[in-house]
Formats: sequence, structure tokens, C-alpha cells
Amino acid sequence: MATLLGGIEAGGTKFVCAIGHSPNSILLEERFPTDDPESTLRRSLDFFLRAQKKFGPLSSLGIGSFGPIDLDVSSLTYGSVTSTPKLRWAGTQVVQAFTELGVPIAFDTDTNAAALGELYYGKGRGLDTLLYITVGTGVGGGIVVNRKPIHGLGHPEIGHIPIIPRKDDSFQGLCPFHGTCLEGMAAGPAIQARWGVPATDLPPDHQAWDLEAEYIAQGLWSFILTISPQKVILGGGVMHQPQLFPLIRSHLRRLLSGYVDRAEILEDNEDYISFPELGNFAGITGALVMAEQILREPSVGQKES
Amino acid sequence: MATLLGGIEAGGTKFVCAIGHSPNSILLEERFPTDDPESTLRRSLDFFLRAQKKFGPLSSLGIGSFGPIDLDVSSLTYGSVTSTPKLRWAGTQVVQAFTELGVPIAFDTDTNAAALGELYYGKGRGLDTLLYITVGTGVGGGIVVNRKPIHGLGHPEIGHIPIIPRKDDSFQGLCPFHGTCLEGMAAGPAIQARWGVPATDLPPDHQAWDLEAEYIAQGLWSFILTISPQKVILGGGVMHQPQLFPLIRSHLRRLLSGYVDRAEILEDNEDYISFPELGNFAGITGALVMAEQILREPSVGQKES
Repeated sequence: MATLLGGIEAGGTKFVCAIGHSPNSILLEERFPTDDPESTLRRSLDFFLRAQKKFGPLSSLGIGSFGPIDLDVSSLTYGSVTSTPKLRWAGTQVVQAFTELGVPIAFDTDTNAAALGELYYGKGRGLDTLLYITVGTGVGGGIVVNRKPIHGLGHPEIGHIPIIPRKDDSFQGLCPFHGTCLEGMAAGPAIQARWGVPATDLPPDHQAWDLEAEYIAQGLWSFILTISPQKVILGGGVMHQPQLFPLIRSHLRRLLSGYVDRAEILEDNEDYISFPELGNFAGITGALVMAEQILREPSVGQKES
Repeated sequence: MATLLGGIEAGGTKFVCAIGHSPNSILLEERFPTDDPESTLRRSLDFFLRAQKKFGPLSSLGIGSFGPIDLDVSSLTYGSVTSTPKLRWAGTQVVQAFTELGVPIAFDTDTNAAALGELYYGKGRGLDTLLYITVGTGVGGGIVVNRKPIHGLGHPEIGHIPIIPRKDDSFQGLCPFHGTCLEGMAAGPAIQARWGVPATDLPPDHQAWDLEAEYIAQGLWSFILTISPQKVILGGGVMHQPQLFPLIRSHLRRLLSGYVDRAEILEDNEDYISFPELGNFAGITGALVMAEQILREPSVGQKES
């Protein structure tokens, strides 16, 4: 019987459920807005129960969830969303909502899933190490090293690293924890608060974009010197502004000052820092990759019983 | 015939050569100052040639080298030191100097080696993800994820991430590339230049240590949110000041502002951020771990021919 993979991209604003025989060939997909936990998770479960009637039994499920989430398999709250500002979701047991499917479940952040998706089926094909950043209503990131997402004490939270505000920018930042961290200074809501209009209303030659590029480049300065990714993928709503990419590369070159002696950094390399190839499908593709991986390596990301 | 592992910690100021049947039981060791490349590498090679006469044939060799180094196995300069400020060493082929031993050679940074040493035989025993930082004449770091050192475009260079200077600190930093990066602001020479005396001459209650702790904590803020290490090990000459550790933990708690909701961060956890258990032996132990790993997984870090 053919393997049937299930995937969920459990985002803060939308859920995507899908099944497929492989991560890059989806048989059935459903997208719907994220509502309260009970109805959203019920709707997701119903998708898979219906799908099984039509396509046969599911083999495994991969869930890429908005966070922060608990990935510690020895924890009582493994598989749940933890201290999210989406208060209705704080403490929600996501994995548990799908145990009645009776299949192995892999659980990770939505951004680690997107990084995996791009690594296996997008711009990271053939690579080992990839950084995926999303700049939208927040700033988040996934990191894959040796073809596996990074986990440790928890998971990456790269949106909250410190930023050095530019001298001509008196904006105090929107992050309730850190004020002027990367998310507080460069996410979509920060752009809107600083300039008084939504980011999408700003013309491509507005000074907002050079400042935005500088802050993103500051983040990359730290990330590249820490994990040395083979490629950097920048997705999310804010990155739909193509003028940002050459500006980011230019600021990054200036900030690194020649210290990283590689053509990927020293030249305006469109291949090294770029938009996701999979676009809106990076997350769900990665969730299906997680489902595939847990079949091959059951110990990865699965709760021991 | 028993496996005989060889290791070299090729540091910028001293070399350590050792052999052992396992990484934590060294049979023979030699330490000597780093001089010009030819004589230093010759002395190292002679150590192994002599050791083989006494203990039998070497099985493999692990080299943890100061850097930056070229780890790209497809590169013509694989196995060499690249653009180091130690000009005599720039371009030196390190791996090539040992090929006449006729054994598999693993090559990595000295700090990745030290991180591996601590992970396998020091405070990281049983963990998967570890951050090792050395604060001495420079600031460097090694990162292990899933029990393997991070490689990508290159290797970690965490000493050069940006730092936000404290308002009462007008020091301009010593880094020729970035001025006020972590190394430029917090390495031993920066402490000496800022306060006018060597760091070791400053009393434990001098204000220098609180500032030093704040800058190290700023670095940890970024590193912890990026790779989420299960433990952080801080070694190197500057870290021989035990008063630094509680100050670093306290600044880090303040800077993260409760965002990382874990006891390891929220409490004054002596286990999470601490001095290396192996002390001066972390690097050479890690080099021997690399030698052991290349016997098990010949593809890791070995030049394809």
C-alpha cells in the first residue's frame, strides 16, 4: 500500500491541511483562517478523517505550528503551543488533537517546516544548511543544519535578537518584551506604526525600504556569523517588495566589511539571499517532509511512550 | 589491533599534539608555542612519526585549527588557514602537511573541536546541542547541533556579531573590520585598551567586569535565540574570572525580559552557562573525537579524492 503523508501548516492566521504520496505532490488540500483552537483543530482533524475515506489510511502526520511551542518530548506539555500572544491558543495541545488518527506525528515550528520545505523541494535542494526567515506580522525563522531543523533548549526565535537603531530612526519598537528587537523594528506592524500607513501603501522608492533593509541586514550579520547558512531564504508578506533584496545585500556587505571572504557575500548574489521558491507552499511542503522523515526515523520529534 | 587516534589542537598561540586509544585517555601529548608554519607543522608531524614507532600505526587524525579555515571539500584550498591576521599563516595548507601519515584526516576549527570535546567528555555529555565560546585574545565559538559541528558556507565566527555599546562606554572597539563587534569590545585586548591595564590586573569588584558581562550577555541573547543551545560553555583566559558568570546570567535575564520561558534562563542556573569541565583539554579532546568520528563516518569532513 502506498505511503500517504499528512501535513498541517498551523499558522497564526491560517491553517493549511494536506495529504500526498510525497511532499511535492499534494492530492488534497484545504486552507482556512485560524479561529479558536477547538474549532480549528476539529476542522483539521475532520479533513484527515474525510481524506482517509477517499484515499485510504494515513501513514504519518507532520505539523508545523506557530509558536512558541513545546518540543521537549520529556515534557508534560510536549506538542502544545506555550506562551503565545494569541491568548486563546496559549497552552493548546496541538499534537494531542490528532492522536486518534493513530499514526506517528512529527511536530515542529511553522518556520522550521518552511525551512525544511525549501531545503528539500525549493531553493535549498542539495544543501545541508539553510536559514529561512519570514518577515510579516512578526519576524520568525527556521534553521536546518545537516538537513534537520535545529532544536535545543527550545527552537529558534530569531525575530527577537537585538538591533542597533539607526541614528535618524527614533522609533521605539513594538516588541512588548524587547522594544527595538528585529521584530519590534522591522515586522509589518512596525513599518506601519513608524510611517503611519500600511507597508503595502509605501511606494518602492520610499526611504522606509532602505531602513527596513538595513535592519534585516543587521539580523543577517548575526545569523550568518553564527550558523553560516549555505543559503538564506527571506519570505513573508513584507518580502513581497523586490526592491528590498539588493538593498539588504548591499547593507550586509557594508556591515560585514569584507570579513566573510566569500563571493556569496561580497557580490550582489541573487542566489544566496532570495525569496522562497515554494512561496505559500513552503510550510505545508515542509510539514509533509516531516511526515516522511518520521516514517524513516521514528525517534525524530516523536513523543516516547 | 587497537585503534590509535591522533589529535592536533592547532591554536594561534600554542599547538597540542596527542594520541590515544580513545579521546579521553591520552597516551602521549606534546604542547609547544605556535611559531612559523613550516617548523610548527614539522614538529607536529614528527610527534606522530615518533609516536607511531612506539605505539604502532595511527588509525586517523583530527585537527582543530585556529582560523578562519577552508572547510569546503570541493575547494582547492580545503584544509588551509585562510585570511588570518597571523600573516605568516595565511594560506598555509594544514591538512596537506599530514597526508604522508596515510590516514583519514578530519579538519575543523579549534572552537568546534572544543565544543565537541565538551559535548562528548565534558559538561555536554548526553546533549545534542552545545554552544562553546572562548573569550581570550579574541572571541570565538564552536557550535554542535545533533552532535555534529555546524558547517555551512563556512564555519561560525561568532566573535564578530554586532554589540550595542553601553551609553557610558565611549570605547570605539578594537576590531579592524567592525570596531565595536563582540570581539572588538570584549576580548582581552579590548579590556586592556579600555582600562589601561591587563584584564588580569583588575580586581574582581572592578566595574570592568559588569561591562564585560553585559557585552557577553548581549552575544548570548542573539546566540540563544538563534540556535537554542542546551548548554553554553564559556572558556578562554578572560573567563577565569568567576565573578563574571553570575553577572552574565543576570544581564542575560534582563535583556531577554522573560521571553525565553525556561528555568535555565529565568534562574541563576550554574549548570546552563558555565566554565568548561575539560579546561585546557577541551580542544585536544575534541580533535581526538573528530579522529574517532572520521573512522565511523568517512564522509564527514574528509576530502573526496
